[in-house]
Amino acid sequence: MSQPQFKGVIPPVVIPLDENRQIDLVAFGRTINRMIDAGVDGLFFLGSSGEVAFLTDAQRYHVLQEAVAMVDGRVPVLAGIIDMETLRVIDQAKRAEAFGVDGLVATAPFYALGGPRENERHFRVIRENTDLPLFAYDLPVCVHTKLDPSMLVKLGTEGVLQGVKDSSGDDVSFRWLCLQNEDAGHPLQLFTGHEVVVDGAYMSGADGSVPGLANLDPHSYVEQWRAYQAGDWERVRQIQDHLARLMFIVRNVAATVGFGAGVGAFKTALWQLGVFNTNQMREPVDALEGDDVASIVKILKDCGLMEPDAPLRS
Amino acid sequence: MSQPQFKGVIPPVVIPLDENRQIDLVAFGRTINRMIDAGVDGLFFLGSSGEVAFLTDAQRYHVLQEAVAMVDGRVPVLAGIIDMETLRVIDQAKRAEAFGVDGLVATAPFYALGGPRENERHFRVIRENTDLPLFAYDLPVCVHTKLDPSMLVKLGTEGVLQGVKDSSGDDVSFRWLCLQNEDAGHPLQLFTGHEVVVDGAYMSGADGSVPGLANLDPHSYVEQWRAYQAGDWERVRQIQDHLARLMFIVRNVAATVGFGAGVGAFKTALWQLGVFNTNQMREPVDALEGDDVASIVKILKDCGLMEPDAPLRS
Amino acid sequence: MSQPQFKGVIPPVVIPLDENRQIDLVAFGRTINRMIDAGVDGLFFLGSSGEVAFLTDAQRYHVLQEAVAMVDGRVPVLAGIIDMETLRVIDQAKRAEAFGVDGLVATAPFYALGGPRENERHFRVIRENTDLPLFAYDLPVCVHTKLDPSMLVKLGTEGVLQGVKDSSGDDVSFRWLCLQNEDAGHPLQLFTGHEVVVDGAYMSGADGSVPGLANLDPHSYVEQWRAYQAGDWERVRQIQDHLARLMFIVRNVAATVGFGAGVGAFKTALWQLGVFNTNQMREPVDALEGDDVASIVKILKDCGLMEPDAPLRS
Amino acid sequence: MSQPQFKGVIPPVVIPLDENRQIDLVAFGRTINRMIDAGVDGLFFLGSSGEVAFLTDAQRYHVLQEAVAMVDGRVPVLAGIIDMETLRVIDQAKRAEAFGVDGLVATAPFYALGGPRENERHFRVIRENTDLPLFAYDLPVCVHTKLDPSMLVKLGTEGVLQGVKDSSGDDVSFRWLCLQNEDAGHPLQLFTGHEVVVDGAYMSGADGSVPGLANLDPHSYVEQWRAYQAGDWERVRQIQDHLARLMFIVRNVAATVGFGAGVGAFKTALWQLGVFNTNQMREPVDALEGDDVASIVKILKDCGLMEPDAPLRS
Repeated sequence: MSQPQFKGVIPPVVIPLDENRQIDLVAFGRTINRMIDAGVDGLFFLGSSGEVAFLTDAQRYHVLQEAVAMVDGRVPVLAGIIDMETLRVIDQAKRAEAFGVDGLVATAPFYALGGPRENERHFRVIRENTDLPLFAYDLPVCVHTKLDPSMLVKLGTEGVLQGVKDSSGDDVSFRWLCLQNEDAGHPLQLFTGHEVVVDGAYMSGADGSVPGLANLDPHSYVEQWRAYQAGDWERVRQIQDHLARLMFIVRNVAATVGFGAGVGAFKTALWQLGVFNTNQMREPVDALEGDDVASIVKILKDCGLMEPDAPLRS
Repeated sequence: MSQPQFKGVIPPVVIPLDENRQIDLVAFGRTINRMIDAGVDGLFFLGSSGEVAFLTDAQRYHVLQEAVAMVDGRVPVLAGIIDMETLRVIDQAKRAEAFGVDGLVATAPFYALGGPRENERHFRVIRENTDLPLFAYDLPVCVHTKLDPSMLVKLGTEGVLQGVKDSSGDDVSFRWLCLQNEDAGHPLQLFTGHEVVVDGAYMSGADGSVPGLANLDPHSYVEQWRAYQAGDWERVRQIQDHLARLMFIVRNVAATVGFGAGVGAFKTALWQLGVFNTNQMREPVDALEGDDVASIVKILKDCGLMEPDAPLRS
Repeated sequence: MSQPQFKGVIPPVVIPLDENRQIDLVAFGRTINRMIDAGVDGLFFLGSSGEVAFLTDAQRYHVLQEAVAMVDGRVPVLAGIIDMETLRVIDQAKRAEAFGVDGLVATAPFYALGGPRENERHFRVIRENTDLPLFAYDLPVCVHTKLDPSMLVKLGTEGVLQGVKDSSGDDVSFRWLCLQNEDAGHPLQLFTGHEVVVDGAYMSGADGSVPGLANLDPHSYVEQWRAYQAGDWERVRQIQDHLARLMFIVRNVAATVGFGAGVGAFKTALWQLGVFNTNQMREPVDALEGDDVASIVKILKDCGLMEPDAPLRS
Repeated sequence: MSQPQFKGVIPPVVIPLDENRQIDLVAFGRTINRMIDAGVDGLFFLGSSGEVAFLTDAQRYHVLQEAVAMVDGRVPVLAGIIDMETLRVIDQAKRAEAFGVDGLVATAPFYALGGPRENERHFRVIRENTDLPLFAYDLPVCVHTKLDPSMLVKLGTEGVLQGVKDSSGDDVSFRWLCLQNEDAGHPLQLFTGHEVVVDGAYMSGADGSVPGLANLDPHSYVEQWRAYQAGDWERVRQIQDHLARLMFIVRNVAATVGFGAGVGAFKTALWQLGVFNTNQMREPVDALEGDDVASIVKILKDCGLMEPDAPLRS
């Protein structure tokens, strides 16, 4: 692969843990291979659902080392370099780069907010400190800043950014980003992170998706991407309806809210599907239990991912 | 029309004012007829872009009286009954009903917020006080409450609600609303208010749209709806790209923010298009001027709504 | 009273309802007289805790008519003229004025937000339409705009505003407002609406307070004001600690959140104290029941407002 | 010092940089000594205004090493251990501990939000991994979670927390925290981070303050603390008015918003006062220039911190 291609389905990889809440390398290989075999176009490690916020630096780079080895060049590897402000992000970038990843993904600064001036400067300074393709991760729910489409396209045109992962929840802004990017000659590769409405993002002209839910059902996202490439919109839509129903697993969690409910439901589903060996979470989050597990299994069965009479794993 | 049909394109009507900032009835008739002639499926008066918040009750009912007379049964008429809490909304409902409208549109309570319990009770109490079809208007940007899809479908199933106008900006939630509504036998008619991404809402299964931008370009929204009905998704998407570009008029307003920029740009465009006679706004909002007007005209020309050499009206 | 004085303790009056959820005029007179007898310096009707959002216009003006008659000139009467945008507020102002109130209280525009330009213009236009003293009500929790201290002082200096009721929760901004007002020659009378930290507001130089909790314990707020006037800060602080503990009644409500919990707790306490005959609320809010009532009574006893062995009213 | 005392004025130390945007150790010693000589009761390094978010780990621990050496036991040293989630915070705690600091300061988790369950667990797990006194830093503007007073007092009673630095901007909640802490036997030392309203926090019963502005004017904060200890409330208040006016330096910055305006103004003032040699900021933030510098100098002169005819440094 002389020049990595960034398009299509690039799932953010959810990390399996063992009973001691350490990375379970057997399950990690299993979930990676399962997604590559299903035909995904890349894998994204150390994203939000890859529990990047919950890992020490040592744990982060353990994940990355194993990931690059396991993927072994079969698909491009993206790495999140998530940290508070510019100098810390560059620190992460340099280390990630050393592990042989194919591209980097950085959010806007967080914790100490600035304005548009600092956000733009942030990406420029990262760019000056790495040669890898750099993606902006638009994630206001975590970083409390929405990236401006005009700024993103400018940074694309100037070679600062390779693309954008949009998890902003703002589909109006994403449409404008796609149009402005088109007008500028398509410098940016644009991905949506909203697994429930990927069809809408494809209507807007997205170059692909980064769906956490693809950890559970990679085949459907790959098939949807191919249907989109073939112009079969009815199929795109039909698959999306299936995937939107599958996402119901995150909606009814009773034990907690936020990350513990969202990624907690993903891990619980992967465990019940036999891909993971546990649904353990990192501190300070507890694994889901009891009715929350049962409710997730019911949805997996309703959506055809588990046999109707499959027993509950415990 | 024995039973009004609610589907397709139902623009929220923007109100033209004369130089004294009073309703301009000639222009009002002109814009209504222009939209009906273009084939819209209904008209919505006293919505947010119909400046409902800016009108005294006397002005509100003047608008409604003239609107019902001008529409004259050609399409169904929806009326916003926007007020702070339940008893005030019922007061508005009763008066609107007397003017012969075909359906009512109410938001969640605002100003004094409660919780889900009060939101659900609110719609039930309105229902007990009117016989007209009742639509929930999901508009967190104005009322600071997001309506829950499960609650909406329950209220639909029980006959409390006829449908929903979704201007929540939450396309994930809208997808779930559509799926849950389908599972319940489609009790609700579901409309999107996001003019920039109507194609995504149609992918999700929307029954129509309530696009403010249709005041400017009703033909495109009608054509898009018909393409959707015919399954011509490429045409749906193509038209959406045109409309998303047209919406650039609201993005670069320099003079102010919020309503004065958004509806201010709509009025300015309608004035330059010759549909309105001025771009006047109600107190405390000023009409756009100078560069803001020029920038809007440029976009109208770029999008083909004005001839390239058409002069600026002033 | 040739020229009403606005200073000291001006409680926002909570409205008692009977079993049919209509105003209970006997209890209304009782609570008004109880506060005046305790020495309050004014009364504020149709504020947020005066359920202004929940009343139809007819109900609002019924409240005002009875209030002015019952107060009968003993203290100045302020009236909330709370509505969405400028023209609707002016409508309310003209009607309130006709009932003989001594001052008006208006928030920033809400529902359709603008920017600083519209907020300033809003108060100017109201001023042009009434001769009564006009207070700005800074209440971002309801109207989602924070008023700027510099703008407020400018409007005070120019005679647009008589004063400010600050319920913004922003004590830093309030300090700056007090200092800037002082530098400008004290054109504004500045009141805090935060009953739990009135001592801090007095430290900042407030001219008085508008504490909802004074409906329950007017004597303490009056005594605190007089201690402040006498420079007895230890007494100011000691009384504040008592009042802050009394406010615990609103913190543990389990049945709901927001207005129903806050004003619901006030009404429940007033009912248990024998000032109100019920704790009924307006639609769509339910009255508190069961454990919520018991928990409020426990706090009233802990704070010495009820005898330890007083029975629960039901 | 067998057991460090945490009370009184503990400024969060602002870091001076040289022209190359590296730490200026001469100025660092000067500002530390200036504050200790003024009588402060402790120093807090690596807080938000200590640019913790902007430093790589290597830079953080360089700051800490120099700080501990320079302070040399004259006052207790607190260190911020600010990172996204629990395991990363523990990583920081262990390293900070090795440098000989006297106490640690941790926020709630950020980036990936959870609920109350995770917030409480977070502090417990940190506690299990360090023996140093642990302070909770309540800072919703950066971490988007408000810590609950009841939880904090519970954690104090159980020995998990030593105290709280409250920069929540919620003075009502702070009053309740003080009262609940008192009822529990005062297990927590409670500090306010709001330099503009320290007098209100002292009224509420705070054990001290952590005022960024004390970098500029440590004498006034120390004198205010001593006046509070002596019960001289009029002097407390008078000094607070002076300090609130001094804080005007952050209000009128035109070049940017947020951290670059706030800490940017502090650094600019310290530079003009001759304590710092530059007003340089870390990437991606620019130093203030031109009119912003002039406006800060004017306020320093108005407040008596600079001679009226002192020249502008450049």
